Amino acid sequence: MANTDSVKVRVLSLNCWGIRYLSKHCPQRYAMIGDMLCREEHDIVLLQEVWSEKDYLSLKRKLACSHPYSHYFKSGVIGSGLAIFSKHRIHDTFLFRYSLNGYPYMAHHGDWFGGKAVGMAILNIGSLIANVYVTHLHAEYCRDKDLYLPHRVVQAWELQQFIRHTSAGADVVILGGDLNMHPEDLGNRLLRSYTGLRDSYVETAKFDGCEDGMTLIADNPFINKKELLPFEKGIRIDYILFKGSSKTDIYCDFMSTTNGSVPDHPFPYSDHEALTAGLRLETHTSTETGRDRQSKNKDSAAGKLAELVDIVTEARTEVKVGLHCAESMRYTAKRTGVMGLALLFLELAIATVPWLALGAEQPFPRTSFYLLAALCFAILLTTFLLYIFYTIELKSLQGAEDQMRLAVGSLQEKLRGFPLAQPHNAQRRPPKVHEPSAFDPEE
Amino acid sequence: MANTDSVKVRVLSLNCWGIRYLSKHCPQRYAMIGDMLCREEHDIVLLQEVWSEKDYLSLKRKLACSHPYSHYFKSGVIGSGLAIFSKHRIHDTFLFRYSLNGYPYMAHHGDWFGGKAVGMAILNIGSLIANVYVTHLHAEYCRDKDLYLPHRVVQAWELQQFIRHTSAGADVVILGGDLNMHPEDLGNRLLRSYTGLRDSYVETAKFDGCEDGMTLIADNPFINKKELLPFEKGIRIDYILFKGSSKTDIYCDFMSTTNGSVPDHPFPYSDHEALTAGLRLETHTSTETGRDRQSKNKDSAAGKLAELVDIVTEARTEVKVGLHCAESMRYTAKRTGVMGLALLFLELAIATVPWLALGAEQPFPRTSFYLLAALCFAILLTTFLLYIFYTIELKSLQGAEDQMRLAVGSLQEKLRGFPLAQPHNAQRRPPKVHEPSAFDPEE
Repeated sequence: MANTDSVKVRVLSLNCWGIRYLSKHCPQRYAMIGDMLCREEHDIVLLQEVWSEKDYLSLKRKLACSHPYSHYFKSGVIGSGLAIFSKHRIHDTFLFRYSLNGYPYMAHHGDWFGGKAVGMAILNIGSLIANVYVTHLHAEYCRDKDLYLPHRVVQAWELQQFIRHTSAGADVVILGGDLNMHPEDLGNRLLRSYTGLRDSYVETAKFDGCEDGMTLIADNPFINKKELLPFEKGIRIDYILFKGSSKTDIYCDFMSTTNGSVPDHPFPYSDHEALTAGLRLETHTSTETGRDRQSKNKDSAAGKLAELVDIVTEARTEVKVGLHCAESMRYTAKRTGVMGLALLFLELAIATVPWLALGAEQPFPRTSFYLLAALCFAILLTTFLLYIFYTIELKSLQGAEDQMRLAVGSLQEKLRGFPLAQPHNAQRRPPKVHEPSAFDPEE
Repeated sequence: MANTDSVKVRVLSLNCWGIRYLSKHCPQRYAMIGDMLCREEHDIVLLQEVWSEKDYLSLKRKLACSHPYSHYFKSGVIGSGLAIFSKHRIHDTFLFRYSLNGYPYMAHHGDWFGGKAVGMAILNIGSLIANVYVTHLHAEYCRDKDLYLPHRVVQAWELQQFIRHTSAGADVVILGGDLNMHPEDLGNRLLRSYTGLRDSYVETAKFDGCEDGMTLIADNPFINKKELLPFEKGIRIDYILFKGSSKTDIYCDFMSTTNGSVPDHPFPYSDHEALTAGLRLETHTSTETGRDRQSKNKDSAAGKLAELVDIVTEARTEVKVGLHCAESMRYTAKRTGVMGLALLFLELAIATVPWLALGAEQPFPRTSFYLLAALCFAILLTTFLLYIFYTIELKSLQGAEDQMRLAVGSLQEKLRGFPLAQPHNAQRRPPKVHEPSAFDPEE
């Protein structure tokens, strides 16, 4: 065992529910959030649903002393709603926009306009490089018949890809945000298994907060209890996840959530509860320990890899369901468009060909003619836009499905390489792999 | 000096100009391209503008023996047009869609519909991990008054971010594609300086092909010579770029381009010339050499860093120009929309308020009324869509500008850390930085 160096980092994640003029008590709640952040002085603050840049800027002014570094991630029509405040210098940022994010015509759900994305900030914590990610996935409006499941699975897939591919140079990886998924939902399992990220609620030594770590609770006055059903008390959909590296171990010493109310205030910070995790980073001056452990744990690594193959296969099935839906929606749009066109031609024929008209003695029904023509044009335009939209959706789903197929093949190849699993195939093991976390027993 | 291991890799990049039914001799050219790839057996083939998946699939069938591994990157309405074929196993792929890519109403330029992106594939070449990127940036239609310059600069910015952040675990990085930028254009300098990628045409020991490495030449029968002016002979806009790592050195032994014609065929492969680079990868078993060299070259590193600050500042200026344009376009859309609305109200008033009507003795002009109303609705819809579109554009430009500002600050901080540049500030040097390539004298 080599020398270790220990650093403590406190991380907060909160979905602020910051829709100006629509969210209840928005300005008051922002003032409360600002005061709390100023007082608590977390090292890293990850906020979601900060929809208005003005609110971000006023928070920024308020936190100028406690959190001198910050970044607001811009995307989509309204923005991504993602913001990060930090006591540690932010060196670099990068934004990845998810390829799918609901439907523009589901305006009452509004997700499409939000331009959902994952934001990354690279921080130096002491001598360590920390890649900090903040994200917000598509909401689940109906658990039994979840229209958006394929979109959320593709978002989880892209999120794990983004984290896996951008974190190779990091000593520590921290992800905070509203994943809109229950702990054992497909997308969550996909994310954790593929990246090796660990859930601070599960890992924490000490917990103080809502039962089962719930972050959307019935006791919160902003919550409509009926919408939570069948989960009477609430659900856990906000997370702080983390992982270390070969150089750094990471532990969660404590975790807490707010409890649906704030002392001395009439209402809570948001409709979601705020999460705080106390992380401890321990740096080895040597990496031998990690490697020793790795060689001991080949069995468990092969097991994890097999589990990952199953999860990716499940995700692929879900994406295929989405593909079928999108295909049938596109077909419907096309058929409706063709019918609109046929109606238009019929109308034109009636107007121009005399013997098709209703009868010479009746006057030509001008008003109906123009209204019908306007209807035809509206149908044609709408179905054309929908056709384009569903084509984009199809391409994105197909792209994710292709990548998943490739990933399953590659994982199975790796699995064959494990001598303990299938010793006769040991010589086929690829010489080196790029995602250690996918089967690294350390993580 | 430690032991070295040498591997040779031949890479081809070609913009296929594969618009079905529109590009001249498309099927014949694909057949020629397939035959050539089958015969030449490059290790890695990077294709752009393979717009139809059917063409990709027929190439895939043809190259099943010579290039068993391949991937087609799907995105946007039509697709990204990007494909990769490889002799080496592809383990993983990832696609990044650029946030800006022209305007949908510029349908004759068509770039917006193409869903421009950068595709990444992770390959194992022997014992080395190679991150291979293929991309195609927005075309330049008029060099003097280039409407799309801010979009292309943002694409180059996102491209360098994507490569920099995803390649930390790679031993070798290779980028091929149609960058639509001249060698010393802003975006190209930004890309090369920030990532440390080197241009195979500049680095090659031996070159055989068009004068000045041009890839869009006047001698190509598919090229309209007038569109090339003022560059009479042609321009160089396609590239193969590469870099090694602390573990691997990379050299370009030879490079070639096609010459506007193919022996025994009536026309060339495409309107672009195909590029081939012969790369040699040399692996050290020790990394000491790199570090030694690094300590010797602090001066040049500070110089490179200062240059990078200048380039990012220049890019920021260009993005700001784009911001002003987008703002004024959005303002115009808004004003036109308001005028459309005013016209509609006026019409409704005329129809409903008797004393505003033209005169009781004249009949109410129904036809004009309906036509005018339809026009108002069309104006309202169009300006609304444009307003949404320009808002998205503004957010993306602002996002890039924010990131650039942060990057300049971070680079300047690093620059202050160089003891040779400003020794009194040495203690402020950050303990470690994430992008070694940005100022690593090795690259």
